[in-house]
Order: sequence, then C-alpha cells, then structure tokens
Amino acid sequence: MRDVLVKLEALGESICVQLENGELPFIDIPSRTTSNIIYDKAEGRFVLGEARTRRTTSNVKHLRAFTQTVWMAYMAKRLIEEGKSTTLRDLYYMAESYGVKFKDQQESDSIIADLEALLGVPREQLRIFPEERATVYGDLTIKYNVQGYEKTTLNLTASPDGVAIGPALAGAEFQNCGAERVIMVESGGMFTRLIEERAHEKFKALLIHTAGQAPRLARQFAYRLRRELGLPVYVFTDGDPWGAHIAMVVISGSANAAHVDSIVIPDAKWIGVLPTDIEEYKLPFEKFNEKDWKRLHDLMADPRYQSPFWREQLKRFEEEGRKSEQQALSIHGLSYVTEKYLPEKFA
Amino acid sequence: MRDVLVKLEALGESICVQLENGELPFIDIPSRTTSNIIYDKAEGRFVLGEARTRRTTSNVKHLRAFTQTVWMAYMAKRLIEEGKSTTLRDLYYMAESYGVKFKDQQESDSIIADLEALLGVPREQLRIFPEERATVYGDLTIKYNVQGYEKTTLNLTASPDGVAIGPALAGAEFQNCGAERVIMVESGGMFTRLIEERAHEKFKALLIHTAGQAPRLARQFAYRLRRELGLPVYVFTDGDPWGAHIAMVVISGSANAAHVDSIVIPDAKWIGVLPTDIEEYKLPFEKFNEKDWKRLHDLMADPRYQSPFWREQLKRFEEEGRKSEQQALSIHGLSYVTEKYLPEKFA
Repeated sequence: MRDVLVKLEALGESICVQLENGELPFIDIPSRTTSNIIYDKAEGRFVLGEARTRRTTSNVKHLRAFTQTVWMAYMAKRLIEEGKSTTLRDLYYMAESYGVKFKDQQESDSIIADLEALLGVPREQLRIFPEERATVYGDLTIKYNVQGYEKTTLNLTASPDGVAIGPALAGAEFQNCGAERVIMVESGGMFTRLIEERAHEKFKALLIHTAGQAPRLARQFAYRLRRELGLPVYVFTDGDPWGAHIAMVVISGSANAAHVDSIVIPDAKWIGVLPTDIEEYKLPFEKFNEKDWKRLHDLMADPRYQSPFWREQLKRFEEEGRKSEQQALSIHGLSYVTEKYLPEKFA
Repeated sequence: MRDVLVKLEALGESICVQLENGELPFIDIPSRTTSNIIYDKAEGRFVLGEARTRRTTSNVKHLRAFTQTVWMAYMAKRLIEEGKSTTLRDLYYMAESYGVKFKDQQESDSIIADLEALLGVPREQLRIFPEERATVYGDLTIKYNVQGYEKTTLNLTASPDGVAIGPALAGAEFQNCGAERVIMVESGGMFTRLIEERAHEKFKALLIHTAGQAPRLARQFAYRLRRELGLPVYVFTDGDPWGAHIAMVVISGSANAAHVDSIVIPDAKWIGVLPTDIEEYKLPFEKFNEKDWKRLHDLMADPRYQSPFWREQLKRFEEEGRKSEQQALSIHGLSYVTEKYLPEKFA
C-alpha cells in the first residue's frame, strides 16, 4: 500500500508544482486505445505501447476528464488511508455527491482504468474491488492486514467449504505454506469433490474455485502465490473452448487489461480437460454447437493461441468438434479424478 | 442425516416386501404437475396437493422411470453413508457407468425432484448440492460434521471476507451465537461494506452475501438460523422488481420447489431498497426499462404478491417507474448505510 500512496502523492505534487509555477497543469496518461495495445510475444501477453495522451487544463475540452482523474486519485488516496473498500459502481455514485459529474458508469470506469495505467497498479490496490468472489482451500497460513484483524492468522483449511477471496485475503500476508502447487478449478462441484477426496493433501495443492472465468482477485491471489511462494499454477477446466480460455486469461491476461501488468502468470499450465483427454479417458462428450464453433474460431485467430501447445489443442478441437466437462470424469466414479486423472497429469 | 437414511431404507424395504409377496412393485410419488401445485394462502407459499403418480413395474412404460428412481435412491444412500457430495450434473454422468440411461440431464434432474417429493427432503440432504456458493460473516460458532473436521469449530468471523456456505457449513452444528438477526445482502460490494463498517457488531447481525438470487444453500442456512436459533431474517437488495423477488423467494419459495417444504421463511422481511426509499433517502435512480416493466407486471399477477405490504410496494414501483441500487446509498458517503439507513430500518 505504501508504494501506491507514494505514487498518488507524486501525482498530486506534480500538479501542485505546475500550479505554483503558474502553468496550466496537465497529466500524461499511457494511451489505452487499440492502436497502442500490442501483443508481446516474448512475454506472452498484451502490453501497452509508448503512446501517451496528454490531458491538459489548457484545453477546455480536457477540463472535465482532467478533473475526473484528479478526483478519482483523491478518492483512491482516501480509501487507502481509511482502509475502506469500494466498487466501480460505488465510485460512480459517490462522484455525484462531490459535484463531479460522470455521464454514465462507463465514463467513470474508464477514468479508473486511466488511473491504473498512470500509476501502473491494478485498481484493487486503490481499494476498488470487483463484485465477484472466488474461494480458496488448502494449507496456507495467512496474516490479515485489516482493522480488527491485526495479528490474526488463519489457515486456509479452516473451513472445508473454502474461504472467500475478498479484499482482506487479497491483501493478507503469507506466513506458512505446506502446499507445493496451485490448482484453479472451474466448477464448484469439482472444487468440493477435490476437497472431499483430499486432493489438497495428495497433491499438496492449494485449490481455488474460479466459478467460470477467474475473478480478478483470484488471478491476483494466484499470481502472488506464484511470485511470492514460487508455487506452480495449474488450471483445471471443462474441455471446451470456454475452458481453454479460462486458462488462457490466467496465463496471458486480456487486451482490456493490457495496462495492468501484475496479474498474468505466463508459466501457468492448462491441465485439462484437454481435447485429447476425451478419447484417452473415455469421457462422455457432446458435439460442438454453433456457439462453440464460433468461439473456437475466435481463439484460433487470437495471437495468444499461436504457441505449439495451444495450436495443437485447438486443432484437436477443430478436427473432432467434441467437448466434455470436468464432471464427466464422474462416469468412472467419484474418486477417479484424484486416483487416476490428476496423478497422471502431475506425473 | 439419520432420518433421511431411515426414509431411504423404508423405501427400499417397501419394494423388497412387494417383491417377496410376489407382487410387481410400485412407488407412489407426489405429483409435481402444475395442476397439483397450489398456493397456500395461510402458509404464504406453494405446496403440492394430494395427487400422486403411481410408478409401477406392472406397466412396461413405467419400468424405465421406476428403475431410475430406485437407482437414484440407491446412490443417495451411498452418498450419505460415504459422506460424499455430488451435483445434479455428476449424477447424470454417473448413471451411465451403472448402465442406467437418462436421455438428458433434464430427465435425471426430474427423477431427483421426484425423490425429494417422495422423501419430503431437499436434495442437499441426499448429498446433491448446487454449484452456487453464498458467503456468510458474523458471530456464530459452528461445529463441522465432516471427515477430517471432527470436533473442529469455527467462528464465522474467522475471515473478514466471509466463509463459503458449501456442503460442510450447510450441515454444521450451531454452537454459540452472538448475533440477534440475519441480514441477507444482494451485492458483494454492499456485503464488504457492511463488514468494514462493522454492521455485524452494530446490528448484532449475521451477514449472508447472496450474489443475486439466494442460492439454495444460503436459503437453507438462513432457514436453519431462523428455526434453530430464532433469529429474524431481513433481506436487503437493490430497489427494483428483481430485488423484490430475491426477498420473495426467501419468504415464499418458488413453485418449482413446491415439493420441498423445509426452506421457506414466511416471516422474513424485505427491508430495502424499497421504492419509497428512493424519495425518502434522496437516492439517484434510473427509469424502468422494458424488462423491468415486464418483470413488474409478472410480479403483480403472482399470487405471492397479494398481501397489503407487497401490493403497496408494487404499486409504488408502478406509479413511479423508478429503480435504485443498494450502492446508490454511497451518494451520501460510504458509512451512510450503517449510520443512517439501516438504523432507521431496524428502529
């Protein structure tokens, strides 16, 4: 938090200095337009190019956006100092009471994205959190860093249903970790199955339930586990183009968030259900429907899917037009996933 | 669990007895067809009428459904005995490996609903759980009742982000409770706000985040808090027809689940955002769109909405065509909800 405050103060100071020098103040913000979003092959993700947009009070057309940006930075500083959490929606409403006008939430969301790009931090570090919550389970002891929980530690096996990954857990300190890997799991049914079959012990794993596309807080949490604890990250989804893309967003992020770099995990691995698993594990499958085909063709044209591994996966999908779910493994019994499928994946 | 096993054994025994007597066995199942779903005004909810459907092996057309029902009962018994959790989807897949055919998941879901009606218990007691997870926070100490957690207790303030309401928490024993009411909260942003503003202390409340329509496990959990601990239940949603209906489903249940009685909370209260709050608390609002109008008219025709309180609410919506969100309260500052709005609601 300290370094974010420093950045916010530097921003405020640069504006004050300009004013004191009798200049009309401006801010240079990394441009988030499509032409400045570049796929970085070496890093395997989207990044912003060098283009910057000047938002200057010397141009009357910029005044509104300049004011909005400064107000947003002011609010972020207050939120951090007071340890309060908000959402994108909150800030849109709160602006009104400060006399700062946004024509709709899209406009205020965009100013928040500008601030992320300007400061180089995800908005969660500005205490602006998404609504979606993922859940985590496994042998990691964390220490909370929020009011009323000073010095409180919690082992993330405390509840057999898992603990929500909200603002508090996202900012918690990692203390002791008995786990050696992270498995992100798409469906709630499979998450509960893995806990009941003691996958966290068998595979020394922290399990994260993403409930579809991983919420930003879940990705940031997994990212911290990778960076701070060195745990490899595996993504376990349904075997269809949508599941593949859950893994890809963990690995490569999205073009929309090209301006936020501290959340992609380039060496995370998609372990299944792979299109080749359908035959290998004799899984029941369904034929692709029209939406699946469209999604597959979108992915085939996507720069993130051009590595040999991903081209091979998409090719198999294309050749066979078959999809299968995590829960299809139940055809061989409820314990099959932990007794046969995952051991072979990790072998 | 014990009484569910007794019911399952009685079902099995009745079939065995019929077979031993040389009869072709049958099962009489409460009919779930529309004509047998009745709105019970006194109870304020849908119930099943007296009609029953006989599923008999003496009719070759019934053989398939009879076998499916018996297999499902067999699986439920095994799941309970082994303490394993499944989902509707799992069971559909698992049937295949037992040589029991379902033409699609809809067919297997329907057999599970038959079994719920036959035994008079929700499917969660048969260890069949939904994917959706709600989250709970507040001063309640529970004792888990699952393998590996024998004698483990947890206070539900253990994590400031809340604890997931999954199969384990749903079946846990309530030990000590410092809370005096339950507040079910629609949005994740408001849930986090209430925790940060210490609403659980100020209002001695257990907070449940429903994330939209309350998942079945959240409703069952709130129901247990009402029945076992006597806590009154309040529902706090957005101020629109969709929010009203989140409250109504907690209060009155749904026609689809008329055959499951142990989950409605007839004296739960919708505390807001009420249509009258928009003016009273000077909340920013939006005009109803076409979908909102359609939804409102659906509700006005719904037998559950004919009490004076609900007619009044819907009338206000109709007169003004305005909706407002929980988070719109942020226009008066982040603490307004706990310093002004909720105290007035509970006064």
